[in-house]
Formats: sequence, structure tokens, C-alpha cells
Amino acid sequence: MTIYPQQGAVMSKTGTCVFRVWAPERKKVELIISSPVQEQLTMLREEEGYWSYEMPGCPSGLRYHYLLDGELHRPDPASRCQPEGVHGDSEVTDGLSFNWTDQQWKGLALKDMLIYELHTGTFTEQGTFQGIISRLDDLLQLGINTIEIMPIAQFPGTRNWGYDGVYPYAVQSSYGGCQGLRQLVDAAHAKGLAVVLDVVYNHLGPEGNYLPEFGPYFTDKYHTPWGSAINYDDRDCDAVRGYFLHNALMWLDEFHIDGLRLDAVHAWWDSSAVHFAEELSAAVKDLEVRTGRKKVLIAEIDLNNPRYITPADKGGYGMQGQWCDEFHHAIHGLLTGEKNGYYEDFGEAEHMAAALEHAYVYTGQYSKHRKRRFGASPKNNARSQFVVFTQNHDQVGNRMLGERLISLAGESAARLAAATMLLSPYVPLLFMGEEYGETKPFSYFTSHSDEALIKAVREGRQQEFAAFQTGKDVPDPQSEELYKQCVLNWKTSGPMYEYYRHLIALRKGRAPLQNDAPDSMIVHPAYHAAVLS
Amino acid sequence: MTIYPQQGAVMSKTGTCVFRVWAPERKKVELIISSPVQEQLTMLREEEGYWSYEMPGCPSGLRYHYLLDGELHRPDPASRCQPEGVHGDSEVTDGLSFNWTDQQWKGLALKDMLIYELHTGTFTEQGTFQGIISRLDDLLQLGINTIEIMPIAQFPGTRNWGYDGVYPYAVQSSYGGCQGLRQLVDAAHAKGLAVVLDVVYNHLGPEGNYLPEFGPYFTDKYHTPWGSAINYDDRDCDAVRGYFLHNALMWLDEFHIDGLRLDAVHAWWDSSAVHFAEELSAAVKDLEVRTGRKKVLIAEIDLNNPRYITPADKGGYGMQGQWCDEFHHAIHGLLTGEKNGYYEDFGEAEHMAAALEHAYVYTGQYSKHRKRRFGASPKNNARSQFVVFTQNHDQVGNRMLGERLISLAGESAARLAAATMLLSPYVPLLFMGEEYGETKPFSYFTSHSDEALIKAVREGRQQEFAAFQTGKDVPDPQSEELYKQCVLNWKTSGPMYEYYRHLIALRKGRAPLQNDAPDSMIVHPAYHAAVLS
Repeated sequence: MTIYPQQGAVMSKTGTCVFRVWAPERKKVELIISSPVQEQLTMLREEEGYWSYEMPGCPSGLRYHYLLDGELHRPDPASRCQPEGVHGDSEVTDGLSFNWTDQQWKGLALKDMLIYELHTGTFTEQGTFQGIISRLDDLLQLGINTIEIMPIAQFPGTRNWGYDGVYPYAVQSSYGGCQGLRQLVDAAHAKGLAVVLDVVYNHLGPEGNYLPEFGPYFTDKYHTPWGSAINYDDRDCDAVRGYFLHNALMWLDEFHIDGLRLDAVHAWWDSSAVHFAEELSAAVKDLEVRTGRKKVLIAEIDLNNPRYITPADKGGYGMQGQWCDEFHHAIHGLLTGEKNGYYEDFGEAEHMAAALEHAYVYTGQYSKHRKRRFGASPKNNARSQFVVFTQNHDQVGNRMLGERLISLAGESAARLAAATMLLSPYVPLLFMGEEYGETKPFSYFTSHSDEALIKAVREGRQQEFAAFQTGKDVPDPQSEELYKQCVLNWKTSGPMYEYYRHLIALRKGRAPLQNDAPDSMIVHPAYHAAVLS
Repeated sequence: MTIYPQQGAVMSKTGTCVFRVWAPERKKVELIISSPVQEQLTMLREEEGYWSYEMPGCPSGLRYHYLLDGELHRPDPASRCQPEGVHGDSEVTDGLSFNWTDQQWKGLALKDMLIYELHTGTFTEQGTFQGIISRLDDLLQLGINTIEIMPIAQFPGTRNWGYDGVYPYAVQSSYGGCQGLRQLVDAAHAKGLAVVLDVVYNHLGPEGNYLPEFGPYFTDKYHTPWGSAINYDDRDCDAVRGYFLHNALMWLDEFHIDGLRLDAVHAWWDSSAVHFAEELSAAVKDLEVRTGRKKVLIAEIDLNNPRYITPADKGGYGMQGQWCDEFHHAIHGLLTGEKNGYYEDFGEAEHMAAALEHAYVYTGQYSKHRKRRFGASPKNNARSQFVVFTQNHDQVGNRMLGERLISLAGESAARLAAATMLLSPYVPLLFMGEEYGETKPFSYFTSHSDEALIKAVREGRQQEFAAFQTGKDVPDPQSEELYKQCVLNWKTSGPMYEYYRHLIALRKGRAPLQNDAPDSMIVHPAYHAAVLS
């Protein structure tokens, strides 16, 4: 499937489990079994720094970790299950025993998607995959056909957006773990809903990240907002590329996920002749062919560079779509009048017109905020390659108080924004709750266990907002109370809800609204002011 | 011509000189004239951090520098002339007054080039452009049609390869300055010889680099072997891109240079939607159209990534050619049996066969030296896009003792190497002296004036070679004696010289040897051992 060995504890149909871990600089790696019986097993050194152990008749639920050079006891970097959290033992799970009922499901093309982004923990009172399942009918009734789940890789504690995940292969245990996620995907498919999963291949969280003790997963060649970059092109990068490539294929293949939303792809620093984005796209295309199911890659990317979503045979990296933040910024700037941070580059009708005409607002013009000319025109890309939104977890949650658009600009503005998005030629993405005018905030919350880190995050947050907000306290991300304030109220009726339903139905019923040729929409300058402000 | 303002002291036909300098963070910039009269002039602040002063009736030869915030006296970063070296005043030169005689010259396509690389200082006893002119007839007699001049941007002292240049716009004064270079280009063109100039846009030298005091020419986003990277994509990068872009155009347009050999393009870190290589290629293409003369860009690039030399309409950066180090490594490894450093990846007949078949040896295989899979196949690129050599300044000079191939492997090996190169489907490049079997070394030499730097370079050199050379002293780069040992002996006769002449004539007379389709050469495995070892 790929040229890279698969890491983790992988069960075969015969019940044999192969444990494989990459630790190229280690002299000795042992497999330590803690349950059901205690054992210490010497692993076999393979080529290119891998170590393996083959265990016939391995029971599902077996608990283990690795011992590096006889000194360091560490969980498996490719653990599929961390029942005791990020610092505890790993657990073998048997993905093959799940009874899938979605044999008829063929996936969904990006151009046909109507996406609904949700955070598992705050989407329902239960805060689990089962909670989501209980709401699928409500989402169907709204008219969306795709849910996008914020990252569910195991993170520290129980309250986190998911971007602090440190076990890319393990499903957050408090959400329901691997089996819970499979049940959700199967249930969604049964109702005709596709599932997109948000995955993070540009950094790991600050607590429980033991990867550097195993090998050079990171490189100092590049600086990122999260410190050292993931090692996609430095010495020993093959195993790191393999680690994330297999992870993507695991979700799409073993978990029947229909698409991945790839976090901050601009921070995948890679000078290789074949960029990791291109390698991933090619592997996913192979998987599509093999499974007969559509699989979609959507990059979050802040470069206004169409190369990432241009087909490989035209010199691109071949991903299907990308998040288009500038569509959001254009509409948000116009409706709120905000000018701080990156909003200084937006706020005029011309920005909205540009976003409507060619997705990116900056296609080579000078950006005051970036202090440089920025971007290139996506003139050869289809409109349906761009996912647009008027709110999402970042745009709401990265505000000091996590206010939604309706709280900032009022209901009329929120309605105008919704119509602009849902009747645009792009792929719309709703953020959970906006469809009924939710007014509860979506804040930045964490539940780290490391006291120094808790303090650092708290202080960092206060410094971040010290400059331009006054009179209000910066909420404490670690507070459970704050988290509870973010759990949705839920409404499946009312004027706003009916308005969204109507818009969605209108979009679905009108072919011209799905015309995705690059030049299918022209905004007439004369009407800018009248129509959009 | 470009979207960026032009920096430096630029004379117009009317005798008005516009001084323009970029210093975005400075509160005040003054123009200090030191000769013919002393004056202190306040410069006008323009947009995007530029400062300018317009001087009608400016005499050529006027000496000046800038005063930053009333504190720092500094030469012009875009100085065209540094008569007193890297720390002294800049001088206005009038490029328009030169009487060009090459009106009929149309340039040369890369595919037709037979290149001869030379270092101005050691090519002749004089060590000047005039010295080169005196040897042009000898080069013509040899049969080459292009000279490639190692960097001539003003560097510290008088002895330097040129990669320590700190004034990209100024021609080394000890070589003959701007006028000397123009005379050389004009004389070469008169004899039907093209001129390629080696330029360095990835770093500046360690002595006399005042650029950071003017503005953010460098960024800490990326690490390079020379420290911080040139700022091609960070805040305020526009002026930096403009600085190097105008520099390229200056050589190609004002100096009638036919092509640029771009040093270490892999260290042009740029995540922009339009990579600097692509922007440069487009600007040079415009210049070709405007002047009706062929202009060639040849990248030195260690990525085995064909994107750089793929046309823009196929998703590439559009440069015409690249240096192909791996062709050298393959032949050098095979002939010398050396295995240290990057040679550990070479040395087998299969490597030579790969180099002959598709230029790059590594097209995705695992490289022991790099500890990763490396490269992609240039299967859609023409053979004539690759410049090959069996020796060059780097491969000879970066050895501890600067030995040429003939000194390492003997005359028969040197002959075999020459034939392999000259009869290959690639563009051959000779390194000065190899054509007559020069046995003098080409060593690494400097003439810095900063004592601490001299010591650091000397010690760095000793450490570099401490590990794998024994019994011999590491030469002192600062020694004038060492430099003198590198000046060519010169021979234009003898068996080796006649052999090169014959090979060159053979190549030029045979159309099949210039067939540059990607699959025009097939190496038959059965003959590897017999033919090549």
C-alpha cells in the first residue's frame, strides 16, 4: 500500500499481532506487557531503525508499552488506544472485529458536500460519539450531508479542541475510543451522511509527546508556531512520512472515514522532490481505486497558493480542496467592522466581491497585515475546491470570549452571512449551533495535568489578549466551568433554523448554484456597496 | 519591468541620478557625498520603506554613502562600485556611456552551449577581466562557445572565490570593475562567445555585510549553512525579492550577460504562492522578448526536483537548466574509489549508468548519505537542461588540497571522464585548465581583513578536514602563497589539449550527440562493468 512499514500494534485476521516501533538511535527496545500477564520481550531490530515483535494469539485489550535502552518506559507512539490517558499504557485493539453495515456506501465528492463542523465534547451533553449519533437525524433534517469532526486523537485530560493530541493513531478514550468512532461512522453512513475527520500532521501537543525520545520526528530546520517542525525532509524523514501517511490511510480505510481536513498544511515544511501533500494525495487516490469509495482531502492552508489543490498531472500536489479563510475574513470584516489582527486586510465591499469571484481575496496584492505582496490567483481551479464558512472553531474560538457572529453583529447580519455562504458557488461549512442562532460561546479550553503547562497556557492567553481587549477578564482555559458554557443548547426549530433549512434546500435544488467553473460568478462593481454593505 | 522599485544610484540619459535605498525601520536616512564635494542631503521617504534622492547633473565617479538615523555611516547595499573595498564609500558609475559593439549578438540557447568555468583571479597572471580577454582566442581554438565566470560581486580583499561577495550590484574593483566587465562581455560577443555569470542569491559573505542594518534582508524562519536565510517570504520580503530580481536583470540587460548560474538555489527558502525562482524566470522571459536576445537561467540545486526546470505552464518554476552534481559524483566515485562524505552514495557502475540515462542518480531510492529516500525522476525534462562536469570549482576546491581529477586518478581516468562528459547528451562544463591536464590545485582561498574571521575560517577549515585526512597540513586559506599556487600554468598544445579539442569537435559535428529527448540514451546493463569500470 505504501513503501513504509506500518507502525503500532496491528492485529491480523489470524489473531497474530505485529508490534512495530521506530527508534533508530536506540540500542535496545523491549516490549513490556502489563496485562493480562506481565512480560518483558526483546524486540527484533529491522532495517532503517524499526523494531518489531510478532505475537501469535494476542488478545484484544492487551496492555503494553516500550522500554527504550533499558531506561525509558514509554507508551507506543502509534498506539491505537490509551485507556488511561496520554501517559499510561497502550492497549491493543482489534479493528477487524467490527461489523460494518455500510457496504453500499460509496462516499461523497467534495463538490456535493454540505459540511457541518462539530466538536465531540461540546456538541451534546454526553460529549461522546454516542451523543453525536443521537443527533444525526436532526442534522439530516437540517439538510447537511457531511459532518466534520474536530480532532479526536488522544489528548491530555478530557477537555480539548483536539489540536493538543499526542497519539495520532489513538481515538480519545473519553469520547468512546476506536469502537465508538466506528459506530458513529457506520451510523452516519446508514443515514447517508459522510464523515470528514480533522487531523493534525503539523505538530503534536505539548503534554505527553514522547515522540522525540523514539526518533527524529521533528527538525530544527524550520520554525513553526508550535516549535520545531515535523521532520518531512531532514535525515531519517522516511519513517516520519510513513507514520503520518499510514495514519491517514488508517482513518480512510479501517475507519471508513470519507475525508480528512488537514490542519495547517502550510506548516508541513517539505523541500522534497515529492512534497508530502503530493505523496499523501497519490496514496489516497490508490485507496479510492482499491475500495471503490470516494475519499477527499481538504487542506487548511494559509498560503493562497493553488498548487496544493492542483492535480498532479498539472504540476500540483493533487489535494481536492482547501479551507478558504479569506472568504470568512471578507464577510466578517464587512459585518463587524473589526480591524484588529488579520482583519486589517479586510472590511471593504471589494474584499467580499473578490472572495465571491475567486475565493482568495489576496491574489498578489500587497497585504498590510503580512507586510508583503501575497498569493496567486486560483484561476484554473474549480469553485467547488474551496470550503467556505462564516464561522468555524478557529474564528469563533480564537477570540478572547469565543463569541459567535450572531453575538457580535446581530441576527440580520448572521442571516446575510449564511445566505452569502450557502448560495455561493463554494462548498459551505456550518459550525455547530449557527443553524439555530446559538449564542453560547465556543471558547478555548484545555484540561492539561502538567501544572507548569497549565500556568504557561493561562498566562499566554492573557498576554495574547492584553493589548486589544479591555474591561473584561481573559477566561481561564483550564476551567471546567468555561467548558460547560460551550456545550450546545440545541434547537431544531425556530425562525433561524427554518431559514437555514430553507437556504440549504434552495441550494440543493438549484443546479446553477453548483456551477463550479472558475468564471461562473461575476460580481458587478456598481452594486458592491448597495448589495453587500 | 518589475513591480519593485530599483535600488542603488541609477543614472539616466539626462545625467540625473536617482539614489534609492530600502530602510523600512529607519526614522531618517541621509545621503552623504564625500567627493567631489562634501554634502549631507536629506532623503525623501517613499512607500514601503524606500528612501530616495534625485540629483540632476550628477557626475560619474561621485563618492557617497548613507547615514542611518544620524548614527550609522554605511555604503550603499546596491552600490555599483566599491573602489576602496567592502567597507569604503560607494561610487556612482554611468553604465549608459559604454560603447557596445555587440548589436548583432542574439545570445545562445542552453542546449547549444559548451561551457568553460573560470575564476577571474587565477585564470591569468593578471587576475583581471583584461587577462581573460587576452585568452579568448585560446578558448575559441579549444572549441568552447561559452565562458562561465565565478562570482565577481565585490568581496573583502582581492583573493576570494566570490561566494563571500557582499555587494551583489558592484563588480569586484580589483578585477577591473564595471567597465572591465563590460569590455570583457563585449569582446566575448565579438568572438561569438556567450558569457554566463555565477551569482549568489542565497547568502552574503561574512565580512562587510551591512544589509541587516538597512532592513530585514534575512529571516530566522529557516536555517542555512550560512546562518539566517535570505528573506524571500517573511514580512517585508517584497523589497528583498526586488533587490535580487533587479540584480539579475541588471546583469542580463545592462551588462549584456547571456545567462546566470544561480548558486545554491535549494537555499532560496520561499513558501510564497509564486516562488522566487518562478518570478525570476518570468521576468527574464520578458527581458528576452524585449531585447530579442536569449537569456539563460541555470540553477545549482541539490534537491533532484525537476520542478525548478519545468516550464511554468506545466506547473514548474521555468528555469532552463540546472547543474547536475550527481553526474560528477558518479564518475568521480567510479574513477577514484572515494567513499567519504557524499561519495558513499556513489562508486558503482549502476550509478554511472543512471547518471547517463536520466541525469539524476537518485530518483526516489534510499540514499545512505542523506539517510532518506531522495529525488524524483526528471522524466519529462530534456537532456539539454542538465549541465554536467567531471570537475568544477566546488568539486576540486572543496577538497583539503584542492586536487584536480588528473592528480587523483591519473591521465587515463581524466581522459575517460572527459569523453564521458563531452559525448553525453547533456551540456558539458569544463573547469579551467582541465583541457590541458593542469596539475596545479584549485584551493579555497580568502583575503579577509577581519582578524577574528580569518582565525575562524582557518580553524573551521582545519576541523572540517581533521577527521579524514592524515599526515598533511590543512592549507591556510588566507595565505597569498596558496592563492599564487592556483594561478593556471596555461598550455594550448600537447596531447591532452588536442584530445579535448578533438572531443569537442566530434560533439559539435554530430547531430545525434545533441539529441536531447528524455529517452534518447539507453545504457545496456550487460556492458556496465566492461565499459565503465
